[in-house]
Amino acid sequence: MRLARLGAPGAERPTVVVDGTHHDLRPVLDELGVTDVGPAFFAAGGLDRVAAAVEAGTLTKLVGAADLRVGAPLARPGKVVCIGVNYRDHAAESGMATPDEPVVFMKDPSTVVGPFDEVLVPVGSTKTDWEVELGAVIGRTARYLGSPDEARACVAGYVVSHDVSEREFQLERGGQWDKGKSCETFNPLGPELVTADEVGDPQALRLTLSVNDVLRQDGTTADMVFGVDHIVWYLSQFMVLEPGDLINTGTPAGVALGLPDKPYLRAGDVVELEITGLGRARQTFAQATR
Amino acid sequence: MRLARLGAPGAERPTVVVDGTHHDLRPVLDELGVTDVGPAFFAAGGLDRVAAAVEAGTLTKLVGAADLRVGAPLARPGKVVCIGVNYRDHAAESGMATPDEPVVFMKDPSTVVGPFDEVLVPVGSTKTDWEVELGAVIGRTARYLGSPDEARACVAGYVVSHDVSEREFQLERGGQWDKGKSCETFNPLGPELVTADEVGDPQALRLTLSVNDVLRQDGTTADMVFGVDHIVWYLSQFMVLEPGDLINTGTPAGVALGLPDKPYLRAGDVVELEITGLGRARQTFAQATR
Repeated sequence: MRLARLGAPGAERPTVVVDGTHHDLRPVLDELGVTDVGPAFFAAGGLDRVAAAVEAGTLTKLVGAADLRVGAPLARPGKVVCIGVNYRDHAAESGMATPDEPVVFMKDPSTVVGPFDEVLVPVGSTKTDWEVELGAVIGRTARYLGSPDEARACVAGYVVSHDVSEREFQLERGGQWDKGKSCETFNPLGPELVTADEVGDPQALRLTLSVNDVLRQDGTTADMVFGVDHIVWYLSQFMVLEPGDLINTGTPAGVALGLPDKPYLRAGDVVELEITGLGRARQTFAQATR
Repeated sequence: MRLARLGAPGAERPTVVVDGTHHDLRPVLDELGVTDVGPAFFAAGGLDRVAAAVEAGTLTKLVGAADLRVGAPLARPGKVVCIGVNYRDHAAESGMATPDEPVVFMKDPSTVVGPFDEVLVPVGSTKTDWEVELGAVIGRTARYLGSPDEARACVAGYVVSHDVSEREFQLERGGQWDKGKSCETFNPLGPELVTADEVGDPQALRLTLSVNDVLRQDGTTADMVFGVDHIVWYLSQFMVLEPGDLINTGTPAGVALGLPDKPYLRAGDVVELEITGLGRARQTFAQATR
Protein backbone atom coordinates (compact mmCIF):
# COMPACT_ATOMS: atom_id res chain seq x y z
CA MET A 1 0.00 0.00 0.00
CA ARG A 2 0.93 3.63 -0.47
CA LEU A 3 -0.07 6.13 2.22
CA ALA A 4 0.01 9.90 1.87
CA ARG A 5 -1.14 13.01 3.74
CA LEU A 6 -2.60 15.89 1.74
CA GLY A 7 -3.49 19.41 2.80
CA ALA A 8 -2.12 22.48 4.56
CA PRO A 9 0.64 22.06 7.17
CA GLY A 10 -0.91 20.86 10.41
CA ALA A 11 -4.20 19.99 8.69
CA GLU A 12 -3.12 17.15 6.41
CA ARG A 13 -5.70 14.47 5.53
CA PRO A 14 -4.33 10.94 5.46
CA THR A 15 -5.02 8.91 2.35
CA VAL A 16 -4.32 5.55 0.82
CA VAL A 17 -3.63 5.43 -2.90
CA VAL A 18 -5.79 2.81 -4.64
CA ASP A 19 -5.51 2.44 -8.40
CA GLY A 20 -3.67 5.75 -8.53
CA THR A 21 -6.39 7.64 -6.67
CA HIS A 22 -6.23 9.09 -3.15
CA HIS A 23 -8.86 7.59 -0.84
CA ASP A 24 -9.76 9.27 2.44
CA LEU A 25 -8.54 7.38 5.53
CA ARG A 26 -10.71 9.32 7.99
CA PRO A 27 -13.16 6.43 8.63
CA VAL A 28 -10.29 4.10 9.50
CA LEU A 29 -8.68 6.66 11.80
CA ASP A 30 -11.99 7.30 13.55
CA GLU A 31 -12.51 3.58 14.02
CA LEU A 32 -9.03 3.32 15.54
CA GLY A 33 -9.58 6.37 17.72
CA VAL A 34 -6.50 8.14 16.38
CA THR A 35 -6.24 11.52 14.71
CA ASP A 36 -3.43 11.01 12.23
CA VAL A 37 -0.98 8.55 10.68
CA GLY A 38 1.61 8.80 13.40
CA PRO A 39 2.88 6.76 16.36
CA ALA A 40 -0.59 5.92 17.72
CA PHE A 41 -1.81 4.79 14.29
CA PHE A 42 0.94 2.22 13.87
CA ALA A 43 0.76 1.11 17.51
CA ALA A 44 -2.97 0.43 17.05
CA GLY A 45 -2.39 -1.81 14.05
CA GLY A 46 -3.51 0.85 11.61
CA LEU A 47 -1.89 -0.69 8.55
CA ASP A 48 -3.90 -3.90 8.92
CA ARG A 49 -7.10 -1.89 9.24
CA VAL A 50 -6.30 0.11 6.13
CA ALA A 51 -5.60 -3.08 4.21
CA ALA A 52 -8.93 -4.49 5.33
CA ALA A 53 -10.78 -1.34 4.30
CA VAL A 54 -9.09 -1.34 0.89
CA GLU A 55 -9.98 -5.01 0.46
CA ALA A 56 -13.59 -4.33 1.47
CA GLY A 57 -13.79 -1.35 -0.89
CA THR A 58 -15.39 0.86 1.76
CA LEU A 59 -13.16 3.90 1.35
CA THR A 60 -14.20 6.87 -0.76
CA LYS A 61 -12.13 9.07 -3.03
CA LEU A 62 -10.76 12.27 -1.50
CA VAL A 63 -12.39 15.03 -3.51
CA GLY A 64 -10.00 17.68 -4.80
CA ALA A 65 -6.89 15.69 -3.93
CA ALA A 66 -4.98 16.95 -6.96
CA ASP A 67 -5.20 20.53 -5.71
CA LEU A 68 -3.87 19.84 -2.24
CA ARG A 69 -0.33 20.28 -0.93
CA VAL A 70 1.49 17.00 -0.39
CA GLY A 71 2.54 16.72 3.26
CA ALA A 72 4.94 14.27 4.83
CA PRO A 73 3.22 10.85 4.79
CA LEU A 74 3.97 10.41 8.49
CA ALA A 75 2.80 12.79 11.21
CA ARG A 76 5.58 13.93 13.49
CA PRO A 77 7.77 10.93 14.40
CA GLY A 78 8.54 10.18 18.03
CA LYS A 79 12.19 10.38 17.10
CA VAL A 80 14.36 10.56 14.00
CA VAL A 81 17.43 8.34 14.23
CA CYS A 82 20.10 8.63 11.55
CA ILE A 83 22.95 6.39 10.45
CA GLY A 84 26.12 8.18 9.41
CA VAL A 85 28.74 7.17 6.86
CA ASN A 86 26.71 4.14 5.76
CA TYR A 87 27.82 3.95 2.11
CA ARG A 88 31.43 3.14 1.31
CA ASP A 89 31.71 5.72 -1.45
CA HIS A 90 30.31 8.45 0.82
CA ALA A 91 32.78 7.50 3.56
CA ALA A 92 35.61 7.90 1.08
CA GLU A 93 34.44 11.28 -0.24
CA SER A 94 33.99 12.53 3.34
CA GLY A 95 37.50 11.49 4.29
CA MET A 96 36.14 9.11 6.93
CA ALA A 97 36.91 5.46 7.56
CA THR A 98 34.22 2.91 6.82
CA PRO A 99 32.74 2.34 10.29
CA ASP A 100 33.03 -0.98 12.15
CA GLU A 101 29.53 -0.53 13.49
CA PRO A 102 26.74 1.96 12.73
CA VAL A 103 27.39 5.61 13.59
CA VAL A 104 24.21 6.95 15.21
CA PHE A 105 22.94 10.50 15.57
CA MET A 106 19.55 12.21 15.77
CA LYS A 107 17.55 14.95 14.12
CA ASP A 108 14.89 17.08 15.80
CA PRO A 109 11.56 15.45 14.77
CA SER A 110 10.09 18.91 14.16
CA THR A 111 12.34 19.22 11.08
CA VAL A 112 10.00 16.93 9.10
CA VAL A 113 8.23 18.82 6.30
CA GLY A 114 6.48 17.86 3.08
CA PRO A 115 8.35 16.59 0.02
CA PHE A 116 7.63 19.72 -2.02
CA ASP A 117 7.88 22.27 0.77
CA GLU A 118 10.39 25.08 0.80
CA VAL A 119 13.60 24.25 2.66
CA LEU A 120 15.41 27.03 4.52
CA VAL A 121 19.14 27.72 4.36
CA PRO A 122 19.84 28.64 8.01
CA VAL A 123 20.88 32.15 9.00
CA GLY A 124 24.68 32.24 8.93
CA SER A 125 24.99 29.03 6.92
CA THR A 126 27.52 28.71 4.12
CA LYS A 127 27.64 24.89 3.95
CA THR A 128 24.07 23.61 3.56
CA ASP A 129 24.29 20.22 1.88
CA TRP A 130 21.97 17.56 0.45
CA GLU A 131 21.64 13.84 1.30
CA VAL A 132 19.09 11.52 -0.32
CA GLU A 133 18.29 8.64 2.02
CA LEU A 134 16.07 5.62 2.32
CA GLY A 135 13.81 6.32 5.30
CA ALA A 136 12.48 3.33 7.25
CA VAL A 137 9.37 3.83 9.36
CA ILE A 138 8.96 1.63 12.42
CA GLY A 139 5.61 -0.16 12.67
CA ARG A 140 6.17 -2.40 15.67
CA THR A 141 8.28 -1.88 18.82
CA ALA A 142 11.86 -3.08 18.42
CA ARG A 143 13.66 -3.69 21.73
CA TYR A 144 16.72 -5.93 22.09
CA LEU A 145 15.93 -7.89 18.93
CA GLY A 146 17.68 -11.27 18.94
CA SER A 147 18.98 -11.01 15.38
CA PRO A 148 18.68 -8.92 12.21
CA ASP A 149 16.17 -11.53 10.99
CA GLU A 150 13.67 -10.21 13.51
CA ALA A 151 13.99 -6.65 12.23
CA ARG A 152 11.97 -6.91 9.04
CA ALA A 153 8.71 -7.45 10.95
CA CYS A 154 9.26 -4.16 12.80
CA VAL A 155 9.44 -2.00 9.66
CA ALA A 156 6.10 -0.62 8.46
CA GLY A 157 7.45 0.76 5.24
CA TYR A 158 9.82 3.05 3.41
CA VAL A 159 9.90 6.65 2.28
CA VAL A 160 12.15 9.10 0.43
CA SER A 161 13.93 11.11 3.14
CA HIS A 162 16.12 14.17 2.65
CA ASP A 163 18.65 14.44 5.47
CA VAL A 164 19.58 18.08 4.84
CA SER A 165 22.83 18.88 6.64
CA GLU A 166 24.82 22.00 7.50
CA ARG A 167 28.45 20.87 7.35
CA GLU A 168 30.02 23.69 9.35
CA PHE A 169 27.47 23.28 12.16
CA GLN A 170 27.86 19.48 11.96
CA LEU A 171 31.62 19.12 11.74
CA GLU A 172 33.31 22.34 12.86
CA ARG A 173 31.28 23.45 15.87
CA GLY A 174 32.09 20.98 18.64
CA GLY A 175 32.12 17.55 17.06
CA GLN A 176 28.61 16.31 17.82
CA TRP A 177 26.61 16.18 14.59
CA ASP A 178 23.04 16.89 15.76
CA LYS A 179 23.68 20.66 15.68
CA GLY A 180 24.06 20.57 11.90
CA LYS A 181 21.19 18.16 11.30
CA SER A 182 18.31 19.75 13.20
CA CYS A 183 17.81 23.11 11.53
CA GLU A 184 14.27 24.20 10.66
CA THR A 185 12.79 22.29 7.65
CA PHE A 186 15.83 19.99 7.40
CA ASN A 187 13.93 16.73 6.87
CA PRO A 188 11.63 16.77 3.82
CA LEU A 189 9.81 13.43 3.73
CA GLY A 190 7.72 11.69 1.10
CA PRO A 191 5.72 11.82 -1.12
CA GLU A 192 4.41 8.44 0.02
CA LEU A 193 4.98 5.87 2.71
CA VAL A 194 5.15 2.58 0.82
CA THR A 195 4.54 -0.51 2.92
CA ALA A 196 7.35 -3.02 3.23
CA ASP A 197 5.48 -5.77 1.35
CA GLU A 198 5.17 -3.54 -1.69
CA VAL A 199 8.82 -2.42 -1.65
CA GLY A 200 10.29 -5.90 -1.71
CA ASP A 201 14.04 -5.98 -1.11
CA PRO A 202 15.08 -2.68 0.55
CA GLN A 203 18.70 -3.42 -0.42
CA ALA A 204 18.01 -3.22 -4.15
CA LEU A 205 16.75 0.34 -4.61
CA ARG A 206 18.31 3.08 -6.71
CA LEU A 207 18.55 6.52 -5.08
CA THR A 208 19.14 9.66 -7.14
CA LEU A 209 19.40 13.33 -6.32
CA SER A 210 19.90 16.26 -8.65
CA VAL A 211 20.52 19.93 -7.95
CA ASN A 212 19.31 22.40 -10.56
CA ASP A 213 18.99 19.48 -13.01
CA VAL A 214 22.58 18.31 -12.46
CA LEU A 215 22.67 14.69 -11.24
CA ARG A 216 24.71 14.69 -8.04
CA GLN A 217 23.90 11.40 -6.30
CA ASP A 218 23.19 8.12 -8.07
CA GLY A 219 23.53 5.19 -5.71
CA THR A 220 21.97 1.92 -4.72
CA THR A 221 20.97 0.64 -1.32
CA ALA A 222 22.95 -2.49 -2.23
CA ASP A 223 26.05 -0.47 -1.34
CA MET A 224 25.05 0.22 2.26
CA VAL A 225 27.70 -0.77 4.80
CA PHE A 226 24.92 -1.91 7.13
CA GLY A 227 21.56 -2.88 5.65
CA VAL A 228 18.15 -1.98 7.06
CA ASP A 229 17.73 -5.23 9.00
CA HIS A 230 21.14 -4.86 10.60
CA ILE A 231 20.46 -1.21 11.47
CA VAL A 232 17.10 -1.91 13.13
CA TRP A 233 18.55 -4.86 15.08
CA TYR A 234 21.60 -2.82 16.07
CA LEU A 235 19.65 0.24 17.20
CA SER A 236 17.33 -1.95 19.26
CA GLN A 237 20.30 -2.86 21.47
CA PHE A 238 20.78 0.79 22.45
CA MET A 239 17.27 2.30 22.43
CA VAL A 240 13.67 1.26 22.09
CA LEU A 241 12.39 1.84 18.55
CA GLU A 242 8.70 2.65 18.67
CA PRO A 243 5.89 2.69 16.12
CA GLY A 244 6.10 5.90 14.12
CA ASP A 245 9.83 6.42 14.59
CA LEU A 246 11.79 7.31 11.46
CA ILE A 247 15.23 5.94 10.64
CA ASN A 248 17.34 7.68 8.00
CA THR A 249 19.68 4.98 6.75
CA GLY A 250 22.53 7.04 5.29
CA THR A 251 23.44 8.62 1.98
CA PRO A 252 25.54 7.50 -1.00
CA ALA A 253 28.38 9.55 -2.53
CA GLY A 254 27.86 12.83 -4.33
CA VAL A 255 27.15 15.38 -1.60
CA ALA A 256 28.56 18.91 -1.89
CA LEU A 257 31.07 18.17 0.88
CA GLY A 258 32.63 15.51 -1.32
CA LEU A 259 32.84 17.53 -4.55
CA PRO A 260 35.96 19.47 -5.52
CA ASP A 261 34.17 22.81 -5.81
CA LYS A 262 31.91 22.24 -2.75
CA PRO A 263 28.76 23.62 -4.39
CA TYR A 264 26.72 24.09 -1.22
CA LEU A 265 23.06 25.02 -1.48
CA ARG A 266 21.89 28.61 -1.85
CA ALA A 267 18.48 30.26 -1.99
CA GLY A 268 16.83 29.44 -5.31
CA ASP A 269 18.47 26.06 -5.74
CA VAL A 270 16.12 23.22 -6.63
CA VAL A 271 16.78 19.69 -5.37
CA GLU A 272 15.01 16.65 -6.81
CA LEU A 273 15.14 13.22 -5.17
CA GLU A 274 13.89 9.81 -6.23
CA ILE A 275 14.08 6.26 -4.93
CA THR A 276 12.89 3.24 -6.93
CA GLY A 277 9.23 2.62 -6.21
CA LEU A 278 8.97 5.33 -3.54
CA GLY A 279 8.34 8.29 -5.79
CA ARG A 280 9.89 11.69 -6.44
CA ALA A 281 10.31 14.77 -4.26
CA ARG A 282 11.35 18.29 -5.19
CA GLN A 283 12.34 21.14 -2.91
CA THR A 284 13.25 24.76 -3.59
CA PHE A 285 15.67 26.29 -1.12
CA ALA A 286 15.14 29.74 0.37
CA GLN A 287 17.08 31.86 2.82
CA ALA A 288 15.86 31.74 6.42
CA THR A 289 15.37 35.13 8.06
CA ARG A 290 15.19 35.96 11.74
CA MET B 1 3.71 27.26 40.61
CA ARG B 2 4.64 23.62 40.95
CA LEU B 3 3.13 21.16 38.47
CA ALA B 4 3.16 17.38 38.81
CA ARG B 5 1.64 14.31 37.16
CA LEU B 6 0.46 11.46 39.38
CA GLY B 7 -0.68 7.96 38.48
CA ALA B 8 0.29 4.88 36.53
CA PRO B 9 2.58 5.21 33.49
CA GLY B 10 0.55 6.47 30.55
CA ALA B 11 -2.37 7.41 32.79
CA GLU B 12 -0.88 10.22 34.87
CA ARG B 13 -3.20 12.96 36.15
CA PRO B 14 -1.72 16.46 35.97
CA THR B 15 -1.86 18.50 39.16
CA VAL B 16 -0.81 21.85 40.55
CA VAL B 17 0.47 21.94 44.08
CA VAL B 18 -1.32 24.59 46.15
CA ASP B 19 -0.44 24.96 49.82
CA GLY B 20 1.33 21.61 49.67
CA THR B 21 -1.70 19.78 48.26
CA HIS B 22 -2.15 18.34 44.77
CA HIS B 23 -5.08 19.91 42.93
CA ASP B 24 -6.56 18.25 39.84
CA LEU B 25 -5.81 20.13 36.60
CA ARG B 26 -8.40 18.26 34.53
CA PRO B 27 -10.85 21.21 34.28
CA VAL B 28 -8.09 23.46 32.94
CA LEU B 29 -6.95 20.85 30.41
CA ASP B 30 -10.54 20.31 29.24
CA GLU B 31 -11.02 24.05 28.85
CA LEU B 32 -7.83 24.22 26.77
CA GLY B 33 -8.81 21.18 24.71
CA VAL B 34 -5.61 19.33 25.54
CA THR B 35 -5.16 15.95 27.17
CA ASP B 36 -1.98 16.40 29.15
CA VAL B 37 0.76 18.76 30.27
CA GLY B 38 2.86 18.47 27.15
CA PRO B 39 3.68 20.49 24.04
CA ALA B 40 0.06 21.42 23.25
CA PHE B 41 -0.55 22.57 26.83
CA PHE B 42 2.30 25.06 26.80
CA ALA B 43 1.54 26.19 23.25
CA ALA B 44 -2.04 26.97 24.29
CA GLY B 45 -0.91 29.20 27.16
CA GLY B 46 -1.67 26.55 29.75
CA LEU B 47 0.45 28.03 32.51
CA ASP B 48 -1.49 31.29 32.48
CA ARG B 49 -4.75 29.36 32.67
CA VAL B 50 -3.51 27.33 35.62
CA ALA B 51 -2.42 30.49 37.39
CA ALA B 52 -5.86 32.01 36.83
CA ALA B 53 -7.59 28.90 38.15
CA VAL B 54 -5.38 28.84 41.23
CA GLU B 55 -6.09 32.53 41.80
CA ALA B 56 -9.83 31.95 41.40
CA GLY B 57 -9.72 28.97 43.76
CA THR B 58 -11.79 26.81 41.42
CA LEU B 59 -9.60 23.70 41.45
CA THR B 60 -10.34 20.77 43.71
CA LYS B 61 -7.97 18.52 45.61
CA LEU B 62 -6.96 15.28 43.90
CA VAL B 63 -8.31 12.56 46.17
CA GLY B 64 -5.82 9.84 47.04
CA ALA B 65 -2.84 11.76 45.67
CA ALA B 66 -0.49 10.45 48.34
CA ASP B 67 -1.01 6.87 47.16
CA LEU B 68 -0.26 7.53 43.50
CA ARG B 69 3.01 7.02 41.65
CA VAL B 70 4.81 10.25 40.81
CA GLY B 71 5.25 10.52 37.04
CA ALA B 72 7.43 12.90 35.07
CA PRO B 73 5.81 16.36 35.41
CA LEU B 74 5.96 16.78 31.63
CA ALA B 75 4.30 14.44 29.14
CA ARG B 76 6.64 13.25 26.42
CA PRO B 77 8.72 16.18 25.18
CA GLY B 78 8.92 16.91 21.45
CA LYS B 79 12.67 16.62 21.78
CA VAL B 80 15.30 16.37 24.48
CA VAL B 81 18.35 18.51 23.75
CA CYS B 82 21.41 18.15 25.95
CA ILE B 83 24.45 20.32 26.56
CA GLY B 84 27.72 18.45 27.06
CA VAL B 85 30.73 19.38 29.16
CA ASN B 86 29.00 22.45 30.58
CA TYR B 87 30.69 22.61 33.99
CA ARG B 88 34.42 23.34 34.19
CA ASP B 89 35.08 20.74 36.88
CA HIS B 90 33.25 18.05 34.87
CA ALA B 91 35.25 18.93 31.76
CA ALA B 92 38.45 18.46 33.74
CA GLU B 93 37.42 15.10 35.24
CA SER B 94 36.35 13.87 31.78
CA GLY B 95 39.69 14.83 30.27
CA MET B 96 37.95 17.24 27.88
CA ALA B 97 38.72 20.87 27.13
CA THR B 98 36.24 23.50 28.29
CA PRO B 99 34.25 24.12 25.11
CA ASP B 100 34.32 27.42 23.22
CA GLU B 101 30.62 27.07 22.47
CA PRO B 102 27.93 24.65 23.68
CA VAL B 103 28.35 20.98 22.73
CA VAL B 104 24.92 19.74 21.66
CA PHE B 105 23.52 16.21 21.53
CA MET B 106 20.09 14.60 21.88
CA LYS B 107 18.31 11.92 23.84
CA ASP B 108 15.37 9.85 22.65
CA PRO B 109 12.28 11.57 24.19
CA SER B 110 10.85 8.14 25.04
CA THR B 111 13.56 7.77 27.70
CA VAL B 112 11.65 10.09 30.04
CA VAL B 113 10.30 8.26 33.10
CA GLY B 114 9.13 9.26 36.56
CA PRO B 115 11.52 10.49 39.26
CA PHE B 116 11.06 7.38 41.42
CA ASP B 117 10.78 4.81 38.62
CA GLU B 118 13.19 1.94 38.18
CA VAL B 119 16.06 2.69 35.80
CA LEU B 120 17.48 -0.12 33.69
CA VAL B 121 21.15 -0.91 33.24
CA PRO B 122 21.23 -1.85 29.52
CA VAL B 123 21.99 -5.38 28.38
CA GLY B 124 25.74 -5.55 27.81
CA SER B 125 26.47 -2.38 29.76
CA THR B 126 29.44 -2.13 32.11
CA LYS B 127 29.68 1.68 32.25
CA THR B 128 26.25 3.05 33.20
CA ASP B 129 26.82 6.45 34.82
CA TRP B 130 24.84 9.17 36.61
CA GLU B 131 24.47 12.89 35.83
CA VAL B 132 22.30 15.26 37.83
CA GLU B 133 21.19 18.17 35.66
CA LEU B 134 19.02 21.25 35.72
CA GLY B 135 16.30 20.62 33.15
CA ALA B 136 14.74 23.64 31.44
CA VAL B 137 11.30 23.21 29.87
CA ILE B 138 10.47 25.44 26.91
CA GLY B 139 7.17 27.31 27.20
CA ARG B 140 7.28 29.55 24.16
CA THR B 141 8.83 28.98 20.71
CA ALA B 142 12.47 30.09 20.50
CA ARG B 143 13.72 30.68 16.95
CA TYR B 144 16.72 32.82 16.08
CA LEU B 145 16.51 34.80 19.31
CA GLY B 146 18.32 38.12 19.03
CA SER B 147 20.18 37.83 22.33
CA PRO B 148 20.35 35.75 25.51
CA ASP B 149 18.15 38.42 27.12
CA GLU B 150 15.23 37.17 25.05
CA ALA B 151 15.68 33.59 26.27
CA ARG B 152 14.22 33.89 29.74
CA ALA B 153 10.70 34.52 28.40
CA CYS B 154 10.85 31.23 26.48
CA VAL B 155 11.48 29.05 29.55
CA ALA B 156 8.35 27.75 31.27
CA GLY B 157 10.18 26.30 34.24
CA TYR B 158 12.75 23.97 35.66
CA VAL B 159 12.94 20.38 36.78
CA VAL B 160 15.38 17.86 38.23
CA SER B 161 16.64 15.81 35.27
CA HIS B 162 18.81 12.69 35.40
CA ASP B 163 20.83 12.38 32.19
CA VAL B 164 21.75 8.71 32.67
CA SER B 165 24.64 7.82 30.37
CA GLU B 166 26.38 4.66 29.19
CA ARG B 167 30.01 5.69 28.75
CA GLU B 168 31.15 2.85 26.51
CA PHE B 169 28.20 3.33 24.18
CA GLN B 170 28.72 7.11 24.28
CA LEU B 171 32.48 7.38 23.88
CA GLU B 172 33.87 4.12 22.51
CA ARG B 173 31.32 3.07 19.88
CA GLY B 174 31.74 5.51 17.02
CA GLY B 175 32.13 8.94 18.57
CA GLN B 176 28.59 10.26 18.39
CA TRP B 177 27.15 10.42 21.91
CA ASP B 178 23.41 9.84 21.34
CA LYS B 179 23.95 6.06 21.32
CA GLY B 180 24.96 6.11 24.99
CA LYS B 181 22.28 8.60 26.04
CA SER B 182 19.08 7.08 24.65
CA CYS B 183 18.77 3.72 26.39
CA GLU B 184 15.40 2.74 27.82
CA THR B 185 14.48 4.68 31.04
CA PHE B 186 17.59 6.90 30.77
CA ASN B 187 15.88 10.21 31.61
CA PRO B 188 14.11 10.22 34.98
CA LEU B 189 12.43 13.61 35.37
CA GLY B 190 10.83 15.39 38.30
CA PRO B 191 9.23 15.31 40.82
CA GLU B 192 7.84 18.73 39.91
CA LEU B 193 8.03 21.29 37.15
CA VAL B 194 8.59 24.56 38.98
CA THR B 195 7.71 27.68 37.00
CA ALA B 196 10.51 30.12 36.24
CA ASP B 197 9.04 32.91 38.39
CA GLU B 198 9.18 30.67 41.44
CA VAL B 199 12.74 29.45 40.80
CA GLY B 200 14.30 32.91 40.62
CA ASP B 201 17.90 32.89 39.41
CA PRO B 202 18.56 29.57 37.61
CA GLN B 203 22.30 30.20 37.97
CA ALA B 204 22.23 30.01 41.76
CA LEU B 205 20.98 26.50 42.43
CA ARG B 206 22.78 23.71 44.26
CA LEU B 207 22.67 20.27 42.62
CA THR B 208 23.51 17.12 44.55
CA LEU B 209 23.54 13.43 43.70
CA SER B 210 24.32 10.49 45.93
CA VAL B 211 24.72 6.80 45.15
CA ASN B 212 23.91 4.36 47.95
CA ASP B 213 24.07 7.28 50.40
CA VAL B 214 27.55 8.36 49.27
CA LEU B 215 27.53 11.98 48.03
CA ARG B 216 29.01 11.93 44.53
CA GLN B 217 28.01 15.24 42.94
CA ASP B 218 27.70 18.54 44.80
CA GLY B 219 27.74 21.47 42.42
CA THR B 220 26.12 24.78 41.69
CA THR B 221 24.60 26.08 38.49
CA ALA B 222 26.76 29.18 39.07
CA ASP B 223 29.63 27.08 37.67
CA MET B 224 28.03 26.42 34.29
CA VAL B 225 30.26 27.33 31.35
CA PHE B 226 27.15 28.55 29.50
CA GLY B 227 24.12 29.61 31.50
CA VAL B 228 20.50 28.80 30.68
CA ASP B 229 19.85 32.08 28.84
CA HIS B 230 22.93 31.61 26.69
CA ILE B 231 22.03 27.97 25.95
CA VAL B 232 18.46 28.77 24.85
CA TRP B 233 19.64 31.69 22.71
CA TYR B 234 22.45 29.57 21.22
CA LEU B 235 20.25 26.56 20.44
CA SER B 236 17.69 28.82 18.78
CA GLN B 237 20.29 29.66 16.11
CA PHE B 238 20.49 25.98 15.07
CA MET B 239 17.01 24.59 15.67
CA VAL B 240 13.52 25.71 16.60
CA LEU B 241 12.83 25.15 20.29
CA GLU B 242 9.16 24.44 20.79
CA PRO B 243 6.80 24.47 23.76
CA GLY B 244 7.24 21.25 25.70
CA ASP B 245 10.85 20.63 24.63
CA LEU B 246 13.27 19.69 27.41
CA ILE B 247 16.83 20.97 27.65
CA ASN B 248 19.29 19.17 29.91
CA THR B 249 21.88 21.80 30.75
CA GLY B 250 24.87 19.67 31.72
CA THR B 251 26.27 18.06 34.86
CA PRO B 252 28.87 19.11 37.45
CA ALA B 253 31.86 16.99 38.49
CA GLY B 254 31.56 13.72 40.34
CA VAL B 255 30.35 11.19 37.79
CA ALA B 256 31.70 7.62 37.84
CA LEU B 257 33.74 8.30 34.69
CA GLY B 258 35.71 10.93 36.60
CA LEU B 259 36.39 8.90 39.75
CA PRO B 260 39.59 6.88 40.21
CA ASP B 261 37.77 3.57 40.80
CA LYS B 262 35.06 4.21 38.16
CA PRO B 263 32.17 2.91 40.29
CA TYR B 264 29.64 2.50 37.49
CA LEU B 265 26.04 1.66 38.36
CA ARG B 266 24.86 -1.89 38.91
CA ALA B 267 21.48 -3.45 39.61
CA GLY B 268 20.41 -2.59 43.15
CA ASP B 269 22.19 0.74 43.30
CA VAL B 270 20.09 3.63 44.58
CA VAL B 271 20.63 7.14 43.21
CA GLU B 272 19.19 10.22 44.91
CA LEU B 273 19.15 13.66 43.29
CA GLU B 274 18.17 17.10 44.52
CA ILE B 275 18.24 20.65 43.20
CA THR B 276 17.47 23.69 45.36
CA GLY B 277 13.76 24.40 45.25
CA LEU B 278 13.00 21.71 42.66
CA GLY B 279 12.68 18.76 45.00
CA ARG B 280 14.22 15.34 45.38
CA ALA B 281 14.20 12.23 43.16
CA ARG B 282 15.29 8.68 43.93
CA GLN B 283 15.81 5.81 41.51
CA THR B 284 16.73 2.18 42.05
CA PHE B 285 18.66 0.59 39.21
CA ALA B 286 17.81 -2.86 37.83
CA GLN B 287 19.27 -5.02 35.09
CA ALA B 288 17.48 -4.86 31.74
CA THR B 289 16.63 -8.21 30.23
CA ARG B 290 15.82 -9.03 26.63
